Amino acid sequence: MTDADERLNLADPQQRPRFTGLATFFRAPVAESAEGLDIALVGVPYDGGVTNRPGTRHGPREVRNQSSLMRRINQATGAAPFASARVADIGDAWVAKPFELSGAHAEIEAFFAQVKAAGARALACGGDHSISLPILRALAGDAPLGMIHIDAHADTGDNYGGSRFHHGAPFKIAVDEGLLDPKRVAQIGIRGSMFDPDMWKFSHDSGMKVIYVEELEARGWRACMADALAFVGDGPIYVSFDIDALDPAFAPGTGTPEAGGLTMREAMGMVRMLKGRDIRGADMVEVSPPFDTGGLTAMNGATIMFELLCVMAGGPPVPTGHPEAPARV
Amino acid sequence: MTDADERLNLADPQQRPRFTGLATFFRAPVAESAEGLDIALVGVPYDGGVTNRPGTRHGPREVRNQSSLMRRINQATGAAPFASARVADIGDAWVAKPFELSGAHAEIEAFFAQVKAAGARALACGGDHSISLPILRALAGDAPLGMIHIDAHADTGDNYGGSRFHHGAPFKIAVDEGLLDPKRVAQIGIRGSMFDPDMWKFSHDSGMKVIYVEELEARGWRACMADALAFVGDGPIYVSFDIDALDPAFAPGTGTPEAGGLTMREAMGMVRMLKGRDIRGADMVEVSPPFDTGGLTAMNGATIMFELLCVMAGGPPVPTGHPEAPARV
Amino acid sequence: MTDADERLNLADPQQRPRFTGLATFFRAPVAESAEGLDIALVGVPYDGGVTNRPGTRHGPREVRNQSSLMRRINQATGAAPFASARVADIGDAWVAKPFELSGAHAEIEAFFAQVKAAGARALACGGDHSISLPILRALAGDAPLGMIHIDAHADTGDNYGGSRFHHGAPFKIAVDEGLLDPKRVAQIGIRGSMFDPDMWKFSHDSGMKVIYVEELEARGWRACMADALAFVGDGPIYVSFDIDALDPAFAPGTGTPEAGGLTMREAMGMVRMLKGRDIRGADMVEVSPPFDTGGLTAMNGATIMFELLCVMAGGPPVPTGHPEAPARV
Amino acid sequence: MTDADERLNLADPQQRPRFTGLATFFRAPVAESAEGLDIALVGVPYDGGVTNRPGTRHGPREVRNQSSLMRRINQATGAAPFASARVADIGDAWVAKPFELSGAHAEIEAFFAQVKAAGARALACGGDHSISLPILRALAGDAPLGMIHIDAHADTGDNYGGSRFHHGAPFKIAVDEGLLDPKRVAQIGIRGSMFDPDMWKFSHDSGMKVIYVEELEARGWRACMADALAFVGDGPIYVSFDIDALDPAFAPGTGTPEAGGLTMREAMGMVRMLKGRDIRGADMVEVSPPFDTGGLTAMNGATIMFELLCVMAGGPPVPTGHPEAPARV
Amino acid sequence: MTDADERLNLADPQQRPRFTGLATFFRAPVAESAEGLDIALVGVPYDGGVTNRPGTRHGPREVRNQSSLMRRINQATGAAPFASARVADIGDAWVAKPFELSGAHAEIEAFFAQVKAAGARALACGGDHSISLPILRALAGDAPLGMIHIDAHADTGDNYGGSRFHHGAPFKIAVDEGLLDPKRVAQIGIRGSMFDPDMWKFSHDSGMKVIYVEELEARGWRACMADALAFVGDGPIYVSFDIDALDPAFAPGTGTPEAGGLTMREAMGMVRMLKGRDIRGADMVEVSPPFDTGGLTAMNGATIMFELLCVMAGGPPVPTGHPEAPARV
Amino acid sequence: MTDADERLNLADPQQRPRFTGLATFFRAPVAESAEGLDIALVGVPYDGGVTNRPGTRHGPREVRNQSSLMRRINQATGAAPFASARVADIGDAWVAKPFELSGAHAEIEAFFAQVKAAGARALACGGDHSISLPILRALAGDAPLGMIHIDAHADTGDNYGGSRFHHGAPFKIAVDEGLLDPKRVAQIGIRGSMFDPDMWKFSHDSGMKVIYVEELEARGWRACMADALAFVGDGPIYVSFDIDALDPAFAPGTGTPEAGGLTMREAMGMVRMLKGRDIRGADMVEVSPPFDTGGLTAMNGATIMFELLCVMAGGPPVPTGHPEAPARV
Repeated sequence: MTDADERLNLADPQQRPRFTGLATFFRAPVAESAEGLDIALVGVPYDGGVTNRPGTRHGPREVRNQSSLMRRINQATGAAPFASARVADIGDAWVAKPFELSGAHAEIEAFFAQVKAAGARALACGGDHSISLPILRALAGDAPLGMIHIDAHADTGDNYGGSRFHHGAPFKIAVDEGLLDPKRVAQIGIRGSMFDPDMWKFSHDSGMKVIYVEELEARGWRACMADALAFVGDGPIYVSFDIDALDPAFAPGTGTPEAGGLTMREAMGMVRMLKGRDIRGADMVEVSPPFDTGGLTAMNGATIMFELLCVMAGGPPVPTGHPEAPARV
Repeated sequence: MTDADERLNLADPQQRPRFTGLATFFRAPVAESAEGLDIALVGVPYDGGVTNRPGTRHGPREVRNQSSLMRRINQATGAAPFASARVADIGDAWVAKPFELSGAHAEIEAFFAQVKAAGARALACGGDHSISLPILRALAGDAPLGMIHIDAHADTGDNYGGSRFHHGAPFKIAVDEGLLDPKRVAQIGIRGSMFDPDMWKFSHDSGMKVIYVEELEARGWRACMADALAFVGDGPIYVSFDIDALDPAFAPGTGTPEAGGLTMREAMGMVRMLKGRDIRGADMVEVSPPFDTGGLTAMNGATIMFELLCVMAGGPPVPTGHPEAPARV
Repeated sequence: MTDADERLNLADPQQRPRFTGLATFFRAPVAESAEGLDIALVGVPYDGGVTNRPGTRHGPREVRNQSSLMRRINQATGAAPFASARVADIGDAWVAKPFELSGAHAEIEAFFAQVKAAGARALACGGDHSISLPILRALAGDAPLGMIHIDAHADTGDNYGGSRFHHGAPFKIAVDEGLLDPKRVAQIGIRGSMFDPDMWKFSHDSGMKVIYVEELEARGWRACMADALAFVGDGPIYVSFDIDALDPAFAPGTGTPEAGGLTMREAMGMVRMLKGRDIRGADMVEVSPPFDTGGLTAMNGATIMFELLCVMAGGPPVPTGHPEAPARV
Repeated sequence: MTDADERLNLADPQQRPRFTGLATFFRAPVAESAEGLDIALVGVPYDGGVTNRPGTRHGPREVRNQSSLMRRINQATGAAPFASARVADIGDAWVAKPFELSGAHAEIEAFFAQVKAAGARALACGGDHSISLPILRALAGDAPLGMIHIDAHADTGDNYGGSRFHHGAPFKIAVDEGLLDPKRVAQIGIRGSMFDPDMWKFSHDSGMKVIYVEELEARGWRACMADALAFVGDGPIYVSFDIDALDPAFAPGTGTPEAGGLTMREAMGMVRMLKGRDIRGADMVEVSPPFDTGGLTAMNGATIMFELLCVMAGGPPVPTGHPEAPARV
Repeated sequence: MTDADERLNLADPQQRPRFTGLATFFRAPVAESAEGLDIALVGVPYDGGVTNRPGTRHGPREVRNQSSLMRRINQATGAAPFASARVADIGDAWVAKPFELSGAHAEIEAFFAQVKAAGARALACGGDHSISLPILRALAGDAPLGMIHIDAHADTGDNYGGSRFHHGAPFKIAVDEGLLDPKRVAQIGIRGSMFDPDMWKFSHDSGMKVIYVEELEARGWRACMADALAFVGDGPIYVSFDIDALDPAFAPGTGTPEAGGLTMREAMGMVRMLKGRDIRGADMVEVSPPFDTGGLTAMNGATIMFELLCVMAGGPPVPTGHPEAPARV
Repeated sequence: MTDADERLNLADPQQRPRFTGLATFFRAPVAESAEGLDIALVGVPYDGGVTNRPGTRHGPREVRNQSSLMRRINQATGAAPFASARVADIGDAWVAKPFELSGAHAEIEAFFAQVKAAGARALACGGDHSISLPILRALAGDAPLGMIHIDAHADTGDNYGGSRFHHGAPFKIAVDEGLLDPKRVAQIGIRGSMFDPDMWKFSHDSGMKVIYVEELEARGWRACMADALAFVGDGPIYVSFDIDALDPAFAPGTGTPEAGGLTMREAMGMVRMLKGRDIRGADMVEVSPPFDTGGLTAMNGATIMFELLCVMAGGPPVPTGHPEAPARV
């Protein structure tokens, strides 16, 4: 083995050939629990809250699979999350009794409560968007959190199919329960046709900032995200990224696709603008592998998770040669 | 059932779970004929005019299938087409004798003549682009129509394969027959390699406005569409949207794909600019399901049809919270 | 139009080009209810009872789509079900409140109770296998029914995931509720690995006849089916065909595939042996389009439904030239 | 290069790595015409005769592509067709005027007439089954030919869609025109539902031998093929293999699939039984790549063509170690 | 949680919902090494020895993924391998220097030598078939082993592409090196076309028993496998199962498919006949996910591995109700 | 045949129906060697240098297949490469001994040396990116070349897997060997995560101009490409286009996809800006068909090759009606 190969340290599973080894998120080490971690990577293979096409229960496995394509360092920002934070894949917040929605949510909440109790922050991979509610229940402390929410749907709907807890409503309930402060919630990428003109009434009435995709097309993602960040302010936030924020050409594998969404350049750019924020937890949800084509959605979902990890991990960036990373010397 | 569920009226098939029921366009009601309708949704499962890859005969069925993802109200504009117009799916203008192109066109023309006789306007789903010719024959009245034509190809070609009537020539013939006024025809999105430098000679010679995709890339879709609308003027028009106007990343399932096309944000924005125009009929053509991947092309085709329906239906928009819709009160 | 074309009566939607028209089961007419029908074709787009891979909620639509490939007459048997029985597609037994399993079953049961009240027999298309339970609740009368059950799994399991009503248990509950007589239930094609050696204990203990696929490989399908029919006897029966009875090469699109299953020649042959039996209702379940490849599973599911329809419809067969059909004269 | 590599002569394109080089049938040499050949491999990229799903115009290219998997020698029989006959790919019998069915057939006939005039026999790759008619017109000489016809459909139908010449009728017309002797035509694998009980009336009335797939399931392929060969006798024959004879699990990529068909072991065995017959020409038709999954149908189609080539080429077999090949010494 | 749910012990990852958790082979526990194990499950993600289509480097990951569909007990035989043997997934025998074939083989050999040194037997998942050679080098002891080899190809070829060590030659070299006793090697399922009539000359000359697929079609798999077992005798053996032994309808995802292969019923039946044999190691190779459709090949590969595990694990079977398992009491 | 059809000269294979004929690049004529050519189109079916997902050995065949969609004339520029240059497909630079990387490179170099000796320039289709090295060795003359390099990766890495010659390192070696002048090398589109912050250290240290995708997003492709061209200057250059420069939505079928890449409108625009440069050779690499979906990547790769051919061919453009082509008169 040459000097060069040694610099690429094959003793580190994250540097081995990427098709080898068990598929964990970003080939991070496996941990039994969140004890001793800064950031816990968690799968939530649950899709009991979907109202249309199912399949996100298979999301964590395929996102793990595609996340092997990620490497350790973010070239564009110099972030080195595995060096600056203790990160591990702690497995799945799986559900023993999937046939009843609120009970399933309680199981998920219990898992994330343990993560919080261990002093770690969670970066979750759904599953459907209903899982954000039990995660917020577990993570929100004494005061409600702000939120950056990138999605095609505001997910502040009413009852549907006899339930309040489906994947189109988590953030209404979260506000109702005092987990989120709607005055510090910004929703970006919203679009699509509606059953009812009042579908996202709660977002508007409660004072959330709703940035439709048409505004993003007109003004550009930088300006929109800057507005959103100004609206949310510097306090603690949660970040929720629904993969259907992306255009279906970039994310066909999702349950409720809406034409006319974000490109990955836009989405990655917006996530990178979260750098320096006080992120208490985050999720990337709604990757549905049975509807995916060639793993594209899972790969883009894994990429978004990696960008989220980079802004959550903090710590000093490293020089990569990129003008936005520290200068090489 | 709660108040909220009642507001989502499940007695209305358009509000039921979207995977249920027979697949009609937008889950609109089925009608035996166009009598009593303002807008008739029509499938034209015919691809006898293709010169390269076939399969658009399967287009109407798959577009119907994917159109279940659409809902009743256009969030971005507030259009509520099913409230402001009488709309139904009247089935297919199918062809009994498919093996002879001009005879097949006569069958299609007869179907659309009945739609017109019933006082309804047609929104058609192809099929290949040759079907625009018999539709125009049925719809054009005493004076030729203008046209907004969004496509990768000008489709004003000459004879090919021994026939004048293939899918690369309908609009030349339509001008020759006095169905279209070339001075009021704008073609947008044109691109692709050519067999012959004179391939779209007729468009140029007859005075059509041809906006190439390179101009759209340089100047933006708003400016290009504004020019096209100004060129076409306020008189009665036909709208023809060939799905191959989209980039193949957005519409792989089509017979004559050309790299470097429109995104869905661009395409949807351009169709919305048609609001208020006197649209006498419209089509969305060339979705070829056998070449599609994961239904993406059919879904985007259904979305374009929905946007066309919204601008055709007219009527008062409803408040949705979107800044371009009426204000909520 | 020639004499020959007239014999192929294009006024009949079932004889038109098969890619045209709305997709109903076998392009049968649509009916609002089962009134006046002998056999009602019903979709049950529900998969809330699955324990592994979801997606069968999309089964009815894709089976309808592929069923367009079927024609009116069974060449091998001469059965002409649309001539000998009044048959229509009455749409879907859809579920308004999908998030709670037993409530969903009650909705399904109510739909089939109406079919029975109208005097029609139902041929259902799932959905997951849990739907057989509410169908049996609706159809079983004073005395329990016998059953021919072709499947990879006996589906007589215990509680799982906190519920008795999942898709691995309907027939245990049906026996418990007196809907099925286990001494007249034959299960064919059983195979696959097990969580627990007692998984199908109830089938054995209750006296059902369980024919494993290894016996079918060794003795042939004719002998096995003959045994099953002798066991079940001449009384009234229900027929349940789980598409995962087929080998995954023939039915990849299903939630719980098990290697080593039936071929379509075997499956079609077995269903044809049901001719003359007193079939009170039947289902074909577990087609999961998101896991299908090229529509193969849906097409085979539609074919099995057609064979079931042929044996349910009864009536005089017609001469087709096949040696098992009546002689041509 | 070692001795072993030299035995595998890489100067021969048929022995190079199989993914290299232009895709010709079996990587055979290209020839401008059939002059000097014993067997001409010909593509017929025409699907203007289809009545349901199109796409076989793309068949020759994909069959050529997959045929690279074939090698030079038939292990099971010892046939070495490229050693025992002069074989080349002479390109496509393409159609300049595809929009009119009988004219297209005339173009195809003219191509095959040249093949015959050159003294070569043709092995054609469709294209839809209508192409067998112009091929027979070109090949049949003074006396009508016999035929072994392996297919799901008898293809002896009447007018359809206003035409006599579609892909469900070639062999009726061929008998009418004296190209085939129905008393020496055997059709094997017939099955599927019917529009009309008289659909294959002509086969029965004219005296063809029709072997349904149910007979093949009951008696085995050897016995059925032996009967067919005895019926056809030793005179000159044409061989037509429609890929839809195979079960859709083996050939999903075809326009008119019918469940319950042949396996490849059966099909290959039957073709091998043609050894020693006086085969004047042959075709393998109806591979439709847009409906294929993973190239399986094209690969099986190429395999059938290779087996046909082996029995057409004749000449001394070589020892391969297989008990049915000559003994190794 | 009910008694029934407790019997299904969700504390055991192998009994949890199958889409949850990290994908290990059969959801077996992960182990750092083979110490303390009876059977070590090993992935070998290496395809540097392929001569045609690559991709088997991705095999172990996808086979692990699909193996989640397996459960703990073999219904047909009562084998309970996880109860009767200590089994774990010890990860991948990955290759640090993939660009040189014989060096890569040395890396693989070293990994398996450690397994043997730990006193465990290995069940490997390829990778291409060249990996059997380094495994045999590691496992073979003082005397050469016998082998049951199920495959489309004898893999006893000569140099190719300048190398002796490709995936078409491992067993010739293994005999040359004294690792295998050719008089105790049986090869089953052999078929396909050949570059050279002498391609498997070494198998015949060295005295291996070669059972071609045509013999299997004629005599049945039971008789052929019985012959093979009698030929191999009761001594220690290696078992190598190349997934291309299956027909491409059952295993499209492989590098060198050959039409006309085994069904899964045949393959599973043959592997079960190995019960009671002295199996020193085994592999299942040549699953190539990039060429797979819907995971079918990986699922069938995982099933074959499970059947191999069952016959390797030995120990007392449990009653399952199946007539070939112990009787229930 | 009409005048119009005659203008479309069907005697020219490039004007025949595009699904007909053998698949050569752009349906160009086949030539045995580069003698007498200006530009030689060459496939290089070699992927022995990949570090992650393989499959580009199948690239040339599928790019040839999809390139049939191209026609003779570039509408946007008026380039008519087949009229202004002698162009042919000279087949593949295939590798006889693929198992050893540097030997394989020597075989490739020898092929391209013949092209150069014949006085032709080569336009190559990979294959993995390692092939650029032997091509440069063959083409570079006395002085090092400049290069426009469009890619997600700088490919100036160090040893990996024990080899200097893998697909992530060709341009470091090319500089080391004096084939490229790093002061005249511009790399555009660079992005993606990294194993090591120094991964592209060589690019920076040697003085190459590296334009990251974030700069392209911020400043636009025109400005970036103008900078790159200014940096490279007017001297002789090589052009290397790695298909992974495109966003995975546009190019899913590649071995090392990186989210957030170029659109085809951007990529085509940049290639067209090369007009008038002194291009000594070019390649388009890393299309991996086994990972492609629906041929999209191969079609986009063929389109890029066509644009490269247009700028390489030079000669007078023809009037097409496009404003950037010569005026029609």
